[in-house]
Amino acid sequence: MFETAELGRKIGRKAFAAEEPQLHTALLKAQFALQDAGIAVIVIVSGVEGAGKGGVVSRLNKWLDARGVETHALWDESEEERERPFFWRFWRVMPARGSIAVLFGSWYTKPIVDHALEHTDLDAYERALHRNVQLEQLLVDDGALIIKFWFHLNRKQQQTRLKADLDAETASPQLKAYSRSYKRFASVSERAIRITDRGHAPWHIIEATDENYRDITTGRLLLEAMESRLAQMTATSGTADGSTAAQTQTVPTVSPTEQTVLDKVDLGSRLSGKEYDKRLASRQSELRQLAWKAKQQGCNTVMVFEGWDAAGKGGVIRRVTAGMDARLFRVISVAAPTDEERAHHYLWRFWRHIPRAGHMTIYDRSWYGRVLVERVERFASTHEWQRAYQEINDFEEQLVDHGVIMLKFWLHISPEEQLARFKEREQVERKQHKITDEDWRNRERWDGYRAAVHDMVARCSTTHAPWLLIGANDKKSARIEVLDTICERLAKALD
Amino acid sequence: MFETAELGRKIGRKAFAAEEPQLHTALLKAQFALQDAGIAVIVIVSGVEGAGKGGVVSRLNKWLDARGVETHALWDESEEERERPFFWRFWRVMPARGSIAVLFGSWYTKPIVDHALEHTDLDAYERALHRNVQLEQLLVDDGALIIKFWFHLNRKQQQTRLKADLDAETASPQLKAYSRSYKRFASVSERAIRITDRGHAPWHIIEATDENYRDITTGRLLLEAMESRLAQMTATSGTADGSTAAQTQTVPTVSPTEQTVLDKVDLGSRLSGKEYDKRLASRQSELRQLAWKAKQQGCNTVMVFEGWDAAGKGGVIRRVTAGMDARLFRVISVAAPTDEERAHHYLWRFWRHIPRAGHMTIYDRSWYGRVLVERVERFASTHEWQRAYQEINDFEEQLVDHGVIMLKFWLHISPEEQLARFKEREQVERKQHKITDEDWRNRERWDGYRAAVHDMVARCSTTHAPWLLIGANDKKSARIEVLDTICERLAKALD
Repeated sequence: MFETAELGRKIGRKAFAAEEPQLHTALLKAQFALQDAGIAVIVIVSGVEGAGKGGVVSRLNKWLDARGVETHALWDESEEERERPFFWRFWRVMPARGSIAVLFGSWYTKPIVDHALEHTDLDAYERALHRNVQLEQLLVDDGALIIKFWFHLNRKQQQTRLKADLDAETASPQLKAYSRSYKRFASVSERAIRITDRGHAPWHIIEATDENYRDITTGRLLLEAMESRLAQMTATSGTADGSTAAQTQTVPTVSPTEQTVLDKVDLGSRLSGKEYDKRLASRQSELRQLAWKAKQQGCNTVMVFEGWDAAGKGGVIRRVTAGMDARLFRVISVAAPTDEERAHHYLWRFWRHIPRAGHMTIYDRSWYGRVLVERVERFASTHEWQRAYQEINDFEEQLVDHGVIMLKFWLHISPEEQLARFKEREQVERKQHKITDEDWRNRERWDGYRAAVHDMVARCSTTHAPWLLIGANDKKSARIEVLDTICERLAKALD
Repeated sequence: MFETAELGRKIGRKAFAAEEPQLHTALLKAQFALQDAGIAVIVIVSGVEGAGKGGVVSRLNKWLDARGVETHALWDESEEERERPFFWRFWRVMPARGSIAVLFGSWYTKPIVDHALEHTDLDAYERALHRNVQLEQLLVDDGALIIKFWFHLNRKQQQTRLKADLDAETASPQLKAYSRSYKRFASVSERAIRITDRGHAPWHIIEATDENYRDITTGRLLLEAMESRLAQMTATSGTADGSTAAQTQTVPTVSPTEQTVLDKVDLGSRLSGKEYDKRLASRQSELRQLAWKAKQQGCNTVMVFEGWDAAGKGGVIRRVTAGMDARLFRVISVAAPTDEERAHHYLWRFWRHIPRAGHMTIYDRSWYGRVLVERVERFASTHEWQRAYQEINDFEEQLVDHGVIMLKFWLHISPEEQLARFKEREQVERKQHKITDEDWRNRERWDGYRAAVHDMVARCSTTHAPWLLIGANDKKSARIEVLDTICERLAKALD
């Protein structure tokens, strides 16, 4: 999830200066329009320590008209507040219709900190998160607009930023605890974002390394949310009670020209034939044993293979299964759904094939079709594919909670490499069946798919089921990397 | 919650025979229409042991066309099923679009049993319930219609029904455990219903004492849900993506001619002046001490008084507070909201006054206005007041979880008694300020309020915050009953 906020995106001083005035004006205009419409706006500012949340809040206060904005720093609870139910302090600062509240610290802070420091268990944590969902639903049902920002730094950046603070004699024990447990906080926060990322109040993860990028992006997203609410109001004005549907925010997606998570995939690694043969044989024999061990321990495995056309999914899957006993795995090739499958929820056809204890299911394409091909080709409506991120996360969480080992691979190649492979397929007779008009059509939508892959990784790559992006310009190196990953993950889980 | 299903409602053999043929025909018609429209229908049949769920299922199978219905008895998990995530077994039996699944046992059974038998803690239980909410949301988003029935018997009825089974040598230890822990099961089930009673998949609690009443009511509610979905489809056909809003079911409410929970309130008790004076003085002094004890123990109390106009709320509240130190309590009289209050969510004005540790807030009228006056006078839209049950339950749960003692009183009088009091107020000069045209107007809506009170009790009377219905035709007896209840609840909580 956070890997999409570690791309090193920057905005230069000049570009910032060029964009800021318009953004400022547009934000003011949107603010006044929402004020007239009597819409309460709640902006939640959260994220890792050291990400400059204070800077963002100052910037928002500069951009918006101060008369309609209240900023609340919700640090530790006061005695007054501790004596009431948890949400009481937040109800105290709820903005009135027509005004904006910027919440620096929110109903997420305490549940995340408590669980990260292991004061609460997973069940209690999830229950708290579900309460947050309900609170937000209640506010949105009442007409409020909620925008949630998460500012992200990677571990190294955080260490650098916090160094000065930590070295100071005044460093709080809390700050020390946070910085020591970066990984724990990351995985706990990720769960909060995953569970509470709803259409009525979506999260936006923002890369906070570069101040200009951080602030401009925040401003843009805020503006987009405000304008989209205004547009919806115009569209639904006159209907009696269009509340729920009208107040679903469209989750902003990466634009095709922006940098995506795919740009960070290393496409340069190569493997010699000799090296490849050696490592392939060794890993395949290892996997054979691991599969039997999984059978003995009753451990189920689910693998998902997605990737560009001609990226080599079939070849990888054949190398993975070659080592294993055929009784232990099943490969499900996902093509167009059957009539029976079409008559059910799109997840139904995948649930059917969930392996039983000790077995393995390998999906050659998967439920991610909903947010890839169905999105790009518009087979699914915007509502349908946007809500699918949450549905897929829920689905995978159930698998993982049951003990299933989940591995999800995206095989990445460059457009040039794809072109070369397409041409080869056309020329070599025994490969001609592998290239169709559809492949050429998909290729034209490269940018659309690029954005869809980025959003998929941003929303569905989780600690328990991460997306593994494999550079596959060199087939040999890709196959070995996949086999390495599978063997390592299985070995670790079966220990 | 269950008290509204203990009214002893019956339908005679003749009335049943008169209604059944039409109901049967109408159900078939609705079934075929939904089949044509490609809507999947999921009927969940649950409730206490001995309520005759098997009988209901047989009846539904008789009324519906068997070719479009599949009944699944979901008893214990098979080995196959245990080896997969919990929901797998339910995905196996999900109905295809256009068909109906009657689920006898469902995704509620295991969480309820596990928690009732204390194999899981509260956090784990709630997490499981939230997963059910998500599963149902996902199915409804996909177009399914979900109807959930809970069949209820009171303890005594259950014992009688189960006696034969329990005496038999073949009685399972499980059945014995269930029947021994009626109260525990009731409170655990109530939580399941409360948390998962959503607009997209509401619960219907049905009194199961009389077979005819039970079956006819089930049939009527099923028909209503099916017909209302068909009507919505006609209304929204042509809109691009009206999914969410369109698929909110209207929660059926009691009809004004039906028996309500108010009909069971005893209006006959009387108290002599002497007896009243004695008990009043004793309880008031007891309450004075209890209030101080609550202060010492840091225990907060919230009381809610609702009731008919002229039922004597003011008089009761004065008797309650007379005994207590004025520093320990606050009475909030709820009139029309201020401008500031109107600019916030309707619950905001009540959150403001939540007492701090050791203190007491007494609400003279309350947040229940949303489902009483605002419903009956149509100040709130149907969506607004229907969603308020869930919002109110969430709100009160937060108070109770924080340790607040909650007491909710409805003062009930007969319409004749109200008329007599209105006339007295008009005639006695010092009482004239207490009677307005609005009171007379409200009186004309008696039946509407009666139904609203019944539904309020049905949905918001919970183990942790029960509605206490007080017969108040005799003011003295009502005051003593309220004081008795308060003293007993406080004494118990402060022990």
